[in-house]
Amino acid sequence: MLEPLPDILIEPVVRAALAEDLGRAGDITSAATIDADARLTATFASRKAGAIAGLACARIAVLTLDPAASFESIAADGEQRQAGPLAKVSANARALLSAERVALNLLGRLSGVATLTRAYVDAVAGTGAVITDTRKTTPGLRALEKYAVRCGGGVNHRFGLDDAILIKDNHVAAAGGVGAAIRRAKAAAGHLVKIECEVDSLAQLDAALAEAPDVIMLDNFSLADLAAAVARVAGKVTLEASGGVNLETVRAIAETGVDVISVGALTHSAPQLDIGLDAG
Amino acid sequence: MLEPLPDILIEPVVRAALAEDLGRAGDITSAATIDADARLTATFASRKAGAIAGLACARIAVLTLDPAASFESIAADGEQRQAGPLAKVSANARALLSAERVALNLLGRLSGVATLTRAYVDAVAGTGAVITDTRKTTPGLRALEKYAVRCGGGVNHRFGLDDAILIKDNHVAAAGGVGAAIRRAKAAAGHLVKIECEVDSLAQLDAALAEAPDVIMLDNFSLADLAAAVARVAGKVTLEASGGVNLETVRAIAETGVDVISVGALTHSAPQLDIGLDAG
Amino acid sequence: MLEPLPDILIEPVVRAALAEDLGRAGDITSAATIDADARLTATFASRKAGAIAGLACARIAVLTLDPAASFESIAADGEQRQAGPLAKVSANARALLSAERVALNLLGRLSGVATLTRAYVDAVAGTGAVITDTRKTTPGLRALEKYAVRCGGGVNHRFGLDDAILIKDNHVAAAGGVGAAIRRAKAAAGHLVKIECEVDSLAQLDAALAEAPDVIMLDNFSLADLAAAVARVAGKVTLEASGGVNLETVRAIAETGVDVISVGALTHSAPQLDIGLDAG
Amino acid sequence: MLEPLPDILIEPVVRAALAEDLGRAGDITSAATIDADARLTATFASRKAGAIAGLACARIAVLTLDPAASFESIAADGEQRQAGPLAKVSANARALLSAERVALNLLGRLSGVATLTRAYVDAVAGTGAVITDTRKTTPGLRALEKYAVRCGGGVNHRFGLDDAILIKDNHVAAAGGVGAAIRRAKAAAGHLVKIECEVDSLAQLDAALAEAPDVIMLDNFSLADLAAAVARVAGKVTLEASGGVNLETVRAIAETGVDVISVGALTHSAPQLDIGLDAG
Amino acid sequence: MLEPLPDILIEPVVRAALAEDLGRAGDITSAATIDADARLTATFASRKAGAIAGLACARIAVLTLDPAASFESIAADGEQRQAGPLAKVSANARALLSAERVALNLLGRLSGVATLTRAYVDAVAGTGAVITDTRKTTPGLRALEKYAVRCGGGVNHRFGLDDAILIKDNHVAAAGGVGAAIRRAKAAAGHLVKIECEVDSLAQLDAALAEAPDVIMLDNFSLADLAAAVARVAGKVTLEASGGVNLETVRAIAETGVDVISVGALTHSAPQLDIGLDAG
Amino acid sequence: MLEPLPDILIEPVVRAALAEDLGRAGDITSAATIDADARLTATFASRKAGAIAGLACARIAVLTLDPAASFESIAADGEQRQAGPLAKVSANARALLSAERVALNLLGRLSGVATLTRAYVDAVAGTGAVITDTRKTTPGLRALEKYAVRCGGGVNHRFGLDDAILIKDNHVAAAGGVGAAIRRAKAAAGHLVKIECEVDSLAQLDAALAEAPDVIMLDNFSLADLAAAVARVAGKVTLEASGGVNLETVRAIAETGVDVISVGALTHSAPQLDIGLDAG
Repeated sequence: MLEPLPDILIEPVVRAALAEDLGRAGDITSAATIDADARLTATFASRKAGAIAGLACARIAVLTLDPAASFESIAADGEQRQAGPLAKVSANARALLSAERVALNLLGRLSGVATLTRAYVDAVAGTGAVITDTRKTTPGLRALEKYAVRCGGGVNHRFGLDDAILIKDNHVAAAGGVGAAIRRAKAAAGHLVKIECEVDSLAQLDAALAEAPDVIMLDNFSLADLAAAVARVAGKVTLEASGGVNLETVRAIAETGVDVISVGALTHSAPQLDIGLDAG
Repeated sequence: MLEPLPDILIEPVVRAALAEDLGRAGDITSAATIDADARLTATFASRKAGAIAGLACARIAVLTLDPAASFESIAADGEQRQAGPLAKVSANARALLSAERVALNLLGRLSGVATLTRAYVDAVAGTGAVITDTRKTTPGLRALEKYAVRCGGGVNHRFGLDDAILIKDNHVAAAGGVGAAIRRAKAAAGHLVKIECEVDSLAQLDAALAEAPDVIMLDNFSLADLAAAVARVAGKVTLEASGGVNLETVRAIAETGVDVISVGALTHSAPQLDIGLDAG
Repeated sequence: MLEPLPDILIEPVVRAALAEDLGRAGDITSAATIDADARLTATFASRKAGAIAGLACARIAVLTLDPAASFESIAADGEQRQAGPLAKVSANARALLSAERVALNLLGRLSGVATLTRAYVDAVAGTGAVITDTRKTTPGLRALEKYAVRCGGGVNHRFGLDDAILIKDNHVAAAGGVGAAIRRAKAAAGHLVKIECEVDSLAQLDAALAEAPDVIMLDNFSLADLAAAVARVAGKVTLEASGGVNLETVRAIAETGVDVISVGALTHSAPQLDIGLDAG
Repeated sequence: MLEPLPDILIEPVVRAALAEDLGRAGDITSAATIDADARLTATFASRKAGAIAGLACARIAVLTLDPAASFESIAADGEQRQAGPLAKVSANARALLSAERVALNLLGRLSGVATLTRAYVDAVAGTGAVITDTRKTTPGLRALEKYAVRCGGGVNHRFGLDDAILIKDNHVAAAGGVGAAIRRAKAAAGHLVKIECEVDSLAQLDAALAEAPDVIMLDNFSLADLAAAVARVAGKVTLEASGGVNLETVRAIAETGVDVISVGALTHSAPQLDIGLDAG
Repeated sequence: MLEPLPDILIEPVVRAALAEDLGRAGDITSAATIDADARLTATFASRKAGAIAGLACARIAVLTLDPAASFESIAADGEQRQAGPLAKVSANARALLSAERVALNLLGRLSGVATLTRAYVDAVAGTGAVITDTRKTTPGLRALEKYAVRCGGGVNHRFGLDDAILIKDNHVAAAGGVGAAIRRAKAAAGHLVKIECEVDSLAQLDAALAEAPDVIMLDNFSLADLAAAVARVAGKVTLEASGGVNLETVRAIAETGVDVISVGALTHSAPQLDIGLDAG
Repeated sequence: MLEPLPDILIEPVVRAALAEDLGRAGDITSAATIDADARLTATFASRKAGAIAGLACARIAVLTLDPAASFESIAADGEQRQAGPLAKVSANARALLSAERVALNLLGRLSGVATLTRAYVDAVAGTGAVITDTRKTTPGLRALEKYAVRCGGGVNHRFGLDDAILIKDNHVAAAGGVGAAIRRAKAAAGHLVKIECEVDSLAQLDAALAEAPDVIMLDNFSLADLAAAVARVAGKVTLEASGGVNLETVRAIAETGVDVISVGALTHSAPQLDIGLDAG
């Protein structure tokens, strides 16, 4: 079940975004053209089908500029929705229009991430593989974008450099081999830290397997090699496929039997979901 | 000619991104597997052709973690490059690998924005139309993403709610019509603020034209109506086409004679340019 | 009509000011001498006539320290008032006295700016000239002081280095002349950016005029030269007079027919309006 | 002897001011009109005589945008100078022009405070009275403005609500009298905290004197009453005169024999000292 | 009487602590195991007797994550309590458990400081000596830890380098002797700044006494020398004993007649008071 | 092998601590008594034996106030040292004395944590058990204090609520039992997140074991029950002992065969290591 982020993790992002947009003079268009006490009722509505993420961002954006506004969600984060209304808002007209772009930028981006994730998750349905993200996130938005991946049905890879060990090619080279690298990692890791090692060949897989890390990442393996790896590992460690994953290839990858498939595009190249604010 | 952003506008973004990635324990993988004084020479290289933006982000990321690192640019922001090396870096190995993801996330994203912008700019080459962006930017990265648009050959629309007046449908409705809205805006605007008004029909165009704003935005006009608008306006104000713009449609839109074409996708849906860091 | 700044632009200034004043131990005098639950009703009152700006700062200062306080405005920002009450406040006594100085420092300073602006605006009444400010504002308070200028009836010049082009003598020198500088600016500017060029002689005026910037600043022109410039320009561009402006000279300058008169003293040398907080 | 503020207290103010001025696009005028590698040598020069304060602000502003700039002080903070050069700077031309306004805003404001302070200090020369400031400072700039007072020869009153006890009329009313208020303060104060009490009559002076605070503030006393107070106190506590102090009245006040004279105008109404940056 | 710190001084500490603990994904345990709308009633309870400080920290921590929570204090800051309940809280279950550790970390630490302070204060009861703290506080928590000292019955020494002059051995050496140092301090100090001088022998005491500072710190004096110093000073200045103070030695030190005894351990080595949160 | 924290994680803590100590006027004692260009050479020296942690904090504190200072480490973080010199520093005298307290507060605190950790680690030497910390850290200093635990030979437990799942009694109660809670956690956890479950009896241990979490925490078990648990688990999951651990009990606990022993006191009650700065 999907769990919301605490508002305390969203508020600083929203406040900074509002400050960035309001600049040094505020919304001079609304100030010039709309009466100070005018009210506006409007609907956040998606123009296309997609998975929703970030309604709290929209709510916090509006309420930050008009604490007396009402915001009623129609959809919920994590839902796959057809085009249509997501939330109804009633607020001071200037405040609502001043908050609109920040609300939509966050809601559209996060829903875009969720929607792309959902497409990958649906593509592997029934295979047993799960879809995971990477650290290829927008600077400053990692917590939010990783949450959006969860909204799309994905699971999260590590959140930063500090919460799991992921040994990549440069670490292997520096440590003098896959085996040595994993051994150094095991010696250094606390008891609540998992260790993953990237390998780029079946030979490296064997070397890694001998040291029993928690997860092995199969980087840019062919489908045949993925299947061979799955057979060879036989469930002893979690296998993650990485590289060359797209919506055309992902199902075949999943069907090799790997446990996890990581997709950088979920956060670095998801187009925004087209969401607008309609008056009335 | 393209002008770099001052480092002072980039540093806070890079430092926040590094802190977000380093978390509360730093790069535990590099600490475990790489000797403290090991050095690494590596190359930032693009895997695909594209327009480059954000080399300063990569430089600042590396130098923040290793002030003694060397960073030599091979490419320059604003260049359209084939796949290949962009910059050469030599640094403490741990520091470089700890900075790598932040450097690539910013460089890849900004180059993605520049590359998509360049595609639009090339598509309208010779027509006299310029490509511009919107406020549909990533929260916290507006200055950087707008800079990336410039790197791709685009020009910037307003930077926030405060530096130009842009009257949209809700403002028109609240003010009681296009004419009234522009008159209110003119009464409120300082002498260094431009006024743009969105219209959605030729009838509204006439009403706007009567009040002589600086720019009129033709929202979701058909090609025929765009052409009619250009004829009717006859150069008296700047005309901006908006809505339904994509790489298939943009040239035809440009050929109607409009001055400016705004494209939200430049910043809200640009896929990242695939850039990596290669050791050696 | 005067439009308030969004609270979100004021709150960080007020919170920082309160933190600066409370230091590391808070208001030790009120803590020592006033009972914890004592209440105080008081009136913010101006000791002299003046234009009011910044009542929201006073409200936010008090409510930040006592969220249950009541604050009723008697005056409104932008009003020219005689000496007398501006707002009535009822709050926890310690909280109110702890917030008093921050509230008064902001309200007095901003009202001082508004009052001086109003004096200039009144001095040119009927001439068609408007009074504008400069970037000679207090570091950290630009948004608030520019707002205070609007409260005094002035209009705002640009808000920063980024929202309009203002070519000054050093830029002219670097670019190789007025004409070259304006041409470079036009090539670089987006379609929502206005261009102003400073000139220091009628000869430079002609050079500038040939390039049709949006605004020409006549720097330190004699009254005769100002009048000559107005005649020569004949309404083709906006003319701004700058330099040597004070309350003795401003009307004569306005009567030359210039459109805009900029006055640095509005923000860099306005004496504060004497406002106090009276118990009872 | 005057002691400089540590740079660490100045840097955040300067960086925030630069960010405020550069906005989201930087200095678009300099970028458009000046070549990227052009250099500029220039002189910070005062147009009028005055006491100088804040040269470090100018230095830090320039060096923040061009770390390779050179900055040579000709004057020193605390000096009373005739009009003329204060510091010579050589830097990247764009960086220098981008930093100019922030440098001048701080240097001009602080020198304005120092100059006004110096005028008061000179006015009481030979009397034994010292000139002190108040908490009527610019929000965010208290440390800098209090430093400027020192540059002008003044001494600082308390820096905030937390570093000394200053009992005012509202505290006296709440505590039930001058004596009770001082006794409560003495019971609460640590051994390094001084206690000052405001009195508004000779009768209150007697009540205060009986409790032996460190300082008594004589608020709005006539010259005769000031003299009477000095006689009555006979050096037993420090006496501070406050209220109705201006350059016309301050010497007579000092000649009554009070020890300290506080002047709010030093920081709340000092006109800026006219300082400019001259190329060449 | 003990006075609470304003919430504005506590909120930034609590928010930063919550952000530090929630990281980039929030409380993943509570999200996984507790229903979103579950509620929890619980009691903050001390496992041991001690002096309480920091209940507001616990309240703010809980209310920041659940603004609708109720928090009823049973104890009050400054009270010496037996083991038992301190406050009752009812909140969303996830929010409460997410806030628990931050609440306890601050409440336990500050109560630990208060409890240790109280032990020293009780140890000198009846002697006339007061117990004071030092600047040996936790970075970022000085205001809170100094408040906790007050909760334990202590009085505060200076809050920072800026609110009193404390001449130590290095200053004496640099200035050329105790007398010279105090004279320089007196010449520099404002009228609301107290001056304290450290001495390490009776000979230095005499030198200091000749210059009449406000306070003299007797550093690492034997009991005999402390008594001699008290006799010699005869109440003319405040005497502070420092160095070698612990719970075994403090009463004897107090009985020498010194006015103030400073104890660094109050803040640098106080064990936390064991406080937990009990459901139900 | 011990790995240093990146400076970027230390600098904000040090700068905030310096700002907290310098306040609004800086170090008024050093300014008054020491000549501006005086230099001082001094030694950071431990008065007692202990494990060292935090030398980088001292270095950064000094260099922040005097970038030209030299700082040579004699000891290294992680070393167990006898009383004696740790680092030699030469700097501007005022800057060094202004930075001294911040440097010592951090160095002393972190070395205190390391020293206490080392005592526990030594107490269990040869048993195979490792010593780990908790989230009972100082708000704002978690990264540093966890690093200090590593300096003392300990390993880190999770860094926050977000990087591992730790099911405690309240979670068990909310989820309806140990088994249900672990199953919910497994369903929610990503593939790089470890799951730990607290149990308070052998019966609960069996229930937990059936669900195969990564780690089981035995909370407040008797020595007999710890041994029984070790036997029953037979290496299938990691066992952590918690509760009632002190230097008297820890070895016996370790000898039961548990893998990990967690000790809250490492960070919440470690007395500071006595370190001073000696001139010369």
